[in-house]
Amino acid sequence: MKFVTFEHHGEVKYGALIKGDTVILPLQEAAERKYGERRLPRQLIEAIALPQLLEEAGNLSEWALNDHEGEELFIPLTAVKLLAPIPRPAKNIFCVGKNYAKHAIEMGSAADIPDDIIVFTKAPTAVAGPDQIILNHQEITSQLDYEGELAVIIGKEGRGITEEAALDYVFGYTIINDVTARDLQSKHKQFFIGKSLDTTCPMGPWIVAKESVGNPNKLNIETKVNGEIRQSSNTENFIFPVEKVISILSQGMTLEPGDVIATGTPEGVGKGFKPPRFLQRGDQVEITVESVGTLVNRIED
Amino acid sequence: MKFVTFEHHGEVKYGALIKGDTVILPLQEAAERKYGERRLPRQLIEAIALPQLLEEAGNLSEWALNDHEGEELFIPLTAVKLLAPIPRPAKNIFCVGKNYAKHAIEMGSAADIPDDIIVFTKAPTAVAGPDQIILNHQEITSQLDYEGELAVIIGKEGRGITEEAALDYVFGYTIINDVTARDLQSKHKQFFIGKSLDTTCPMGPWIVAKESVGNPNKLNIETKVNGEIRQSSNTENFIFPVEKVISILSQGMTLEPGDVIATGTPEGVGKGFKPPRFLQRGDQVEITVESVGTLVNRIED
Repeated sequence: MKFVTFEHHGEVKYGALIKGDTVILPLQEAAERKYGERRLPRQLIEAIALPQLLEEAGNLSEWALNDHEGEELFIPLTAVKLLAPIPRPAKNIFCVGKNYAKHAIEMGSAADIPDDIIVFTKAPTAVAGPDQIILNHQEITSQLDYEGELAVIIGKEGRGITEEAALDYVFGYTIINDVTARDLQSKHKQFFIGKSLDTTCPMGPWIVAKESVGNPNKLNIETKVNGEIRQSSNTENFIFPVEKVISILSQGMTLEPGDVIATGTPEGVGKGFKPPRFLQRGDQVEITVESVGTLVNRIED
Repeated sequence: MKFVTFEHHGEVKYGALIKGDTVILPLQEAAERKYGERRLPRQLIEAIALPQLLEEAGNLSEWALNDHEGEELFIPLTAVKLLAPIPRPAKNIFCVGKNYAKHAIEMGSAADIPDDIIVFTKAPTAVAGPDQIILNHQEITSQLDYEGELAVIIGKEGRGITEEAALDYVFGYTIINDVTARDLQSKHKQFFIGKSLDTTCPMGPWIVAKESVGNPNKLNIETKVNGEIRQSSNTENFIFPVEKVISILSQGMTLEPGDVIATGTPEGVGKGFKPPRFLQRGDQVEITVESVGTLVNRIED
C-alpha cells in the first residue's frame, strides 16, 4: 500500500492510493466518516507511528470501495499536488555516505570504500516534493549533482536495535534525491553544508509500506537526467544493507517514527564523469526504485 | 533577561527569571492572568519566534512584581527541575568544528586550522538538561570527551543573511556541552555518529536574551572536570565569529527560530592531553560562559 501527503483545495492531507494507484482515499476524513470520531492524527508522520495504520488503511479502503459515503471522499491522483510524504521531518535526514563500492571508487579510489559506515545529515528545511523545482543556488555553487537513493522510513522507536530485528522498526520506503553542491561539500570538509541547501532533498512520490516491497536489499535503482540513464544499479550492491544501517545508527542513539534514512547512492553521479557532468538549469532528474516508484524534479531555469 | 524551561508538579512550562534570578515567572500563565486570554504559545521554542517576547516578558515581570495576582504565580528556582531551554529542537543542532585555532592544533596540527567553516550536526534526541546525567555508553565507546561551547539561539527566519545583519537574527545565547565519543568520531569519518549518542548534548541552564550579553565574540569560556580547569579561553579567539557563522550557514539554507548553533570548543579537550584524559564514570563537567551562566552535568556511574 502507498501513502501520500498532498495538497487539495489549499489543504494539506494524507491518504492511501487505491484503484490501481489512480485514486486517493484521505485517511483522516475516511476514519472520521466511518467511525463518527477522530481516529487518526493530522499528519502522516504521526500516523506512521501507529502500529495499526496499515491494517486501518486497509479496512478504510475496503469500506470506502463498498460504501457510498466513503466513495464521496475519493480524489483522483491527477487532481492533487503531491508533497513530500513527510514534508517536514522532525530532525535532519540521516544519510549514508559511500554505501556502494563503485560509487566510493568514482569519488576517489578503492581506498575510499568504507570499512565503517559513514553518516551525515541533511537539514529538514531542504526537503522538496515530487515535481517541485530544485533551486539552482547559482550564487553559491556551480557543481550541483544528483544522487538517487532508496530511503527508509522508521515506524517504531528503538535504541540498540539488532540486525535481526531491524526491519520490525521500518514502516516503509520512499525515494530521495540527495542533491549535493560538490564544491561546498569539499570546501567545508564535513558534508552538511553542501548537502543542506533549500530544496536539495526531493522526497517521494510516496511511502510504500514495507509489506509491499519485500527485501529492501534487492531492488533495481536507476537515475536519468533528461532521459539519459546515469545511474543503474541494485541495492544488493549495498556495502551496508538496510538492517545493518539501522542497527549501527541505533547503537546509543534512539531512532523515532518518522525518521528518514537515505541509504546512499550508486555509481554514476555527475562528479564521477570525466569531465564531470553537473546539473544545469532546466535539467530533469528522474529516479526510479523498483517496487517503490519514480521521483521526478527539474532544476530551476 | 533569562528564559528557562522547567518541570514543576509534573508539568513542563517556561518562564523568565526575576528577583536576582531566584524566582521564575511562568510566562504563559502570567499573560493569561494579566490579559484574560492566551497570548503566548505553549513552548519556549515557539515563544522566541515572537518579535515582542522580550518586551512582553518585561511587561509581565513588572506587572507580576506589582500585582498580588501576579505574585501568586512566582515559583522559586530551587523548587523546579530545569530542563534544556529547548528540550526538543525541531532539527539537528548545528555545530561548528575547529573554531578555535589552538583546539584545531591539539586535534592534529596547524594544518587542521580550517580556511573554511566546518559544520556538522547533533541529533535532537541527544539533548539533555542541566544537571541531567550523561549516559556513559560504555558498550560502544571508551573515549567520551567534553567540549564546552557558547551556543546561539536563532530568533528570526532568514536566508542569505549578511554578517552586518546577522545579530538581528539572534534571540539569545546558551551553553552546550558537545560531548563526543572520539573513537566513533574518527571511526565513522563524518562526525555525526560520534556526536549524537543520547544525552550527549547537554544544553542550558537557560537562554539569555542577546540584549543582556552584548558582544558574543568577547566572552570568557571555561570548562572544569571535577573542579579542575581544563578549558579556559575567550570567544574573541573564534576563527569564525558568530556573525560569520550565521551568514555562511544561511547562504542557501533557511535558518529558523529555535535553531541552535554550537559555536565550537576551545583547546583543552580530553583528547588534547598526552595521554588523553577522557571522561570517566561519575565525572562532573562544569562549563561557564561569561554573561550566560554555568552548565553542570555528571557522567553516569
